[in-house]
Amino acid sequence: MSDITGAPEGPPPVEALVDDPVYRAAVIDLLGVLAYTELVAFERLAADASLAPSIADEAALALMATAEIRHFTRLAERLAELGADPAGAMQPFAEPILEFHAQTAPGDWVESLVKAYVGDGIATDFYREVAEIVDPETRDLVLEVCGDTGHANFAVATVRAAIEQDPRIGGRLALWGRRLVGEAMSQAQRVAAERDALASLIVGGMDRPGLGLDGLGAMFGRLTDNHTSRMQTLGLQA
Amino acid sequence: MSDITGAPEGPPPVEALVDDPVYRAAVIDLLGVLAYTELVAFERLAADASLAPSIADEAALALMATAEIRHFTRLAERLAELGADPAGAMQPFAEPILEFHAQTAPGDWVESLVKAYVGDGIATDFYREVAEIVDPETRDLVLEVCGDTGHANFAVATVRAAIEQDPRIGGRLALWGRRLVGEAMSQAQRVAAERDALASLIVGGMDRPGLGLDGLGAMFGRLTDNHTSRMQTLGLQA
Repeated sequence: MSDITGAPEGPPPVEALVDDPVYRAAVIDLLGVLAYTELVAFERLAADASLAPSIADEAALALMATAEIRHFTRLAERLAELGADPAGAMQPFAEPILEFHAQTAPGDWVESLVKAYVGDGIATDFYREVAEIVDPETRDLVLEVCGDTGHANFAVATVRAAIEQDPRIGGRLALWGRRLVGEAMSQAQRVAAERDALASLIVGGMDRPGLGLDGLGAMFGRLTDNHTSRMQTLGLQA
Repeated sequence: MSDITGAPEGPPPVEALVDDPVYRAAVIDLLGVLAYTELVAFERLAADASLAPSIADEAALALMATAEIRHFTRLAERLAELGADPAGAMQPFAEPILEFHAQTAPGDWVESLVKAYVGDGIATDFYREVAEIVDPETRDLVLEVCGDTGHANFAVATVRAAIEQDPRIGGRLALWGRRLVGEAMSQAQRVAAERDALASLIVGGMDRPGLGLDGLGAMFGRLTDNHTSRMQTLGLQA
């Protein structure tokens, strides 16, 4: 971005950083964590389909799960193009992602839909924020795989209908939403503490632009606001 | 099929039976049971991917699961073309198929692969046999969705390698294979007892060709032989 005088405004263009080995490691981390997120989301959504109360709902959820695997394939291909081993790039994130899912195994069909909508929503918001500070090619790919899978509308309609039918489940689902965010945050902190390159890509290092500490605070504010409105969309208190 | 004199040989062509409401009900049953088989196979394979010992194996299994959902979609579309409600056509088979899976939940990664290879193998063989006695359009669709998903080679290579590494698991897996067949047979009998149109399509009724009782016996012989050679391919006793 430059103003009409041609003088640079804000951080230098990130395109220039592609040859930087630290930047490259951070991008591989970013694509790796995103790829494993998609792979596990696929497995969980497909398995959760079996919780559906009707075959029509079951089929709808199964078809949505396949969108995640298409995203996974795109990310794995891009990692290979960058000369990285896709499985190796995902490996560092396996434990926190699996731990998140182990701590948030849905107890029933409605919990699985709240998890898919609220959990995917916050993850997608986060990856979209990070997309703004990476090179255009990486950004386009991240935005593409964060695209809507049609899941959101289905989840919202089904959860709202379930609450309408039995308003008492609202309290339980509100607590469930808080637990999902809490677990997601605690695993995200763990990743940030363990993956230096990715953390400094996001916060910004000496020679790289990033969100900065203020920007990081603002980002968390936006993530929280969006989470609150998703909970409201479901008819739940955040 | 006719000989060179033009005289009919064997059963009348099944094309002529498409307008028969009993035949139509049987075809809808056939496509319905096949569709629900694929949908549940998809969910289970996707969930089993999380048992994989490596991310590369996990990704391979997840990608194979998606073949099942493509097959499911083709079958659901065909049911709709025939004027049937796809979910309604699958419903009668939900309980026996879910019961089969509940009774044969794999305890580990290798059991899940044996189940996928041996279970899918016997189901596919059965549907291919039935394909021979239905109208050409139904036959082509059944054969298409029974096509290889690439799963077989992966399962064989992985199971053989696991047995090579620890020959003691061979005994347990051989028992597992027998249990899979036993459960499949008992659920198939249940379906046959409950679904008259489908059962008489297969055995043959007064005005329809079918396998006949002799043919049914011969078919079970072929299914058993193929099962035995699949077990041998895995390095297991049938």
